Amino acid sequence: MQNFELYNPVNYVFGKGQIEKLKNLVPENTKILIAYGGGSIFKNGVYDQVKAALSKSFKANHIVEFGGIEPNPRYETLMKAVAVIREEKIGFILAVGGGSVIDGVKFISAAVHYEGDAADILRKRILFKDVSQVIPFGTVLTLPATGSEMNSGAVVTIEATQEKLTLGGSALFPVFSIVDPTVITSLPKRQLQNGVIDAFTHVMEQYLTYPHDAMLQDRIAEGILQTLIEIGPDVVENPSDYKLASNFVWSATMALNGLIQKGVPSDWATHMIGHELTALYEIDHARTLAIIGPNLYRVMFDTKKEKLAQYGKRVWNLTGDSTEAIAEEAIEKTVAFFHTMGMKTKISENTDNYENTADFIVNRFEERGWKAMGEKQNITPEKVREIVEMSY
Amino acid sequence: MQNFELYNPVNYVFGKGQIEKLKNLVPENTKILIAYGGGSIFKNGVYDQVKAALSKSFKANHIVEFGGIEPNPRYETLMKAVAVIREEKIGFILAVGGGSVIDGVKFISAAVHYEGDAADILRKRILFKDVSQVIPFGTVLTLPATGSEMNSGAVVTIEATQEKLTLGGSALFPVFSIVDPTVITSLPKRQLQNGVIDAFTHVMEQYLTYPHDAMLQDRIAEGILQTLIEIGPDVVENPSDYKLASNFVWSATMALNGLIQKGVPSDWATHMIGHELTALYEIDHARTLAIIGPNLYRVMFDTKKEKLAQYGKRVWNLTGDSTEAIAEEAIEKTVAFFHTMGMKTKISENTDNYENTADFIVNRFEERGWKAMGEKQNITPEKVREIVEMSY
Repeated sequence: MQNFELYNPVNYVFGKGQIEKLKNLVPENTKILIAYGGGSIFKNGVYDQVKAALSKSFKANHIVEFGGIEPNPRYETLMKAVAVIREEKIGFILAVGGGSVIDGVKFISAAVHYEGDAADILRKRILFKDVSQVIPFGTVLTLPATGSEMNSGAVVTIEATQEKLTLGGSALFPVFSIVDPTVITSLPKRQLQNGVIDAFTHVMEQYLTYPHDAMLQDRIAEGILQTLIEIGPDVVENPSDYKLASNFVWSATMALNGLIQKGVPSDWATHMIGHELTALYEIDHARTLAIIGPNLYRVMFDTKKEKLAQYGKRVWNLTGDSTEAIAEEAIEKTVAFFHTMGMKTKISENTDNYENTADFIVNRFEERGWKAMGEKQNITPEKVREIVEMSY
Repeated sequence: MQNFELYNPVNYVFGKGQIEKLKNLVPENTKILIAYGGGSIFKNGVYDQVKAALSKSFKANHIVEFGGIEPNPRYETLMKAVAVIREEKIGFILAVGGGSVIDGVKFISAAVHYEGDAADILRKRILFKDVSQVIPFGTVLTLPATGSEMNSGAVVTIEATQEKLTLGGSALFPVFSIVDPTVITSLPKRQLQNGVIDAFTHVMEQYLTYPHDAMLQDRIAEGILQTLIEIGPDVVENPSDYKLASNFVWSATMALNGLIQKGVPSDWATHMIGHELTALYEIDHARTLAIIGPNLYRVMFDTKKEKLAQYGKRVWNLTGDSTEAIAEEAIEKTVAFFHTMGMKTKISENTDNYENTADFIVNRFEERGWKAMGEKQNITPEKVREIVEMSY
């Protein structure tokens, strides 16, 4: 097992009716900013619940609101919130939304006290390790998928230059996150499907590499995959079923809260290629993962076949003596699961005029100087080309 | 799934050679107390590693030592450390040892600023939620088993009155814990066996109850059990095998760091009965669990048979249609595993003159006013009698 440090100070508050606890979780005598996205919180009742909980501890003039944080949150938008916080002397931010709103708030939190050009936080990958550098924040999750509610990373896009960049550091964990699984009841089926596949692929990126000594991490990763496979097809049909909803939401957090990555190699090339499909064709993030993942496993079969066979045996209960046969069947089982979850696993099913996709992506990676990706750093531009062309 | 709060701010630093990181983890400009037990740290080299790491940041006159914390740490001993801390104006405690030393340091941490009779911390079950109430502490683990390195609970015995009592609260998490799996190399085989069975039973107490909706928690619990079954027999023979050691030590932490208990019912009656066997006959804690656990499952069979069958299928790969038959076989598999791990699973194999054990334990529980235990509060004194007599 590789050496690791596990540090995750988020107070994670899970369950029905937990939004009411906001009144005890948000610090008193502080002016707070409620940050949100496109306004779905007004339709699903979460805004009203948040305001009702806060009204017990806060006077109305101690609460400022900032809406309009986009999916794939924009630096330009977030800097407007930074200006509001500086002007209004805000001491605490409450992110109410999904991964984009929470990611956006992480950037806002880091930018307020940053001296110099705040874009450097992203471009120079400044790490925030000291909580005195940032504005503390909590979250109320409304869309499970990204795990942002229980990790310290974020992705932000600079609109002007079309750069999608990351930030992070141990000071950027939420102080608390309230996760009420009943919030998924009002989500469109497409978003629920995306959430399941996004969480599933987060696990695969950290699990489907090569055999190693971290036995318990493998078991936990397999447990999350099994749970998502068991509940996925049903939860998108019956999101008001609390058993299904609660296991989905908790699995999505556990998929990317840092635990299963400790001590193990990880891949993340599916995400890196998928991001380009979103940039090119605006295909939903999760749907790009469903397209790329299985073809990446096929192209990198020699690297991954032992782990694919373990996955096939333990997660899909496949049997047999041939590592290769079980590994191949495991990929087919995965694709079939993605189809059950409403994914279209070819680029051509998601967009027209895709013929130059491989050229475009390979060029882009080469421009950035990326020589290789993946857990063995053997997913070269040529392999990327093969994966993308196989995905047409 | 039951509502839950998950909060665990321990900076858990795992792996080979990590003790060296002490120089960055212990706060500077603070006088520190190194607390330890019977002196095994002088034989296994951990003391020297700790002193070497600290010498890089601390002058010798900023380090005070306190040894002699017993297994089942005594209130009377710990109060001597409290006096040292008050006199020497210590600002940070470093616990170097196993669960007893770490539990003892949690009490010391809580008692220093406590006004009034410190025994009330235990007798009145005072919760410590505010870090300003306590002296911060870190740990260097030398004996895996209890999970104390990553939780906020402790057990302390008041010698004068023979009371074994608990304390806890979110302020009593270690600030950091350094867990180097190579420390187990020098442990006696008996302690390694005990550590595996202690960790295994910690999982069973939180898992082996009745079927519920927390699907992922079950999977994680089963993953820890499977890992301990896979490595247990070998790690006690080859503790210097890093693959075995690292999975054992990490599994022991995960068994009782709070994660698998979230959202689920738990039992803990095996521990409560087992504690009395230790008090009566000084049988090692883990060995009392190996005696009581299987007989508790037998006596409470009607309550636990569905979960026993799930455990049999998923952890032991048992097959068949009869819930009862699989459940029974699962108990036998568990006993056989305990025997493989060197446990003697009858009281009569561990002590002579045991005939009045059931009377004694049942009387003791009745004196305390305990009417029932277990996840369904149906382990009555009469059931306890049956379990203990079956264990003769």
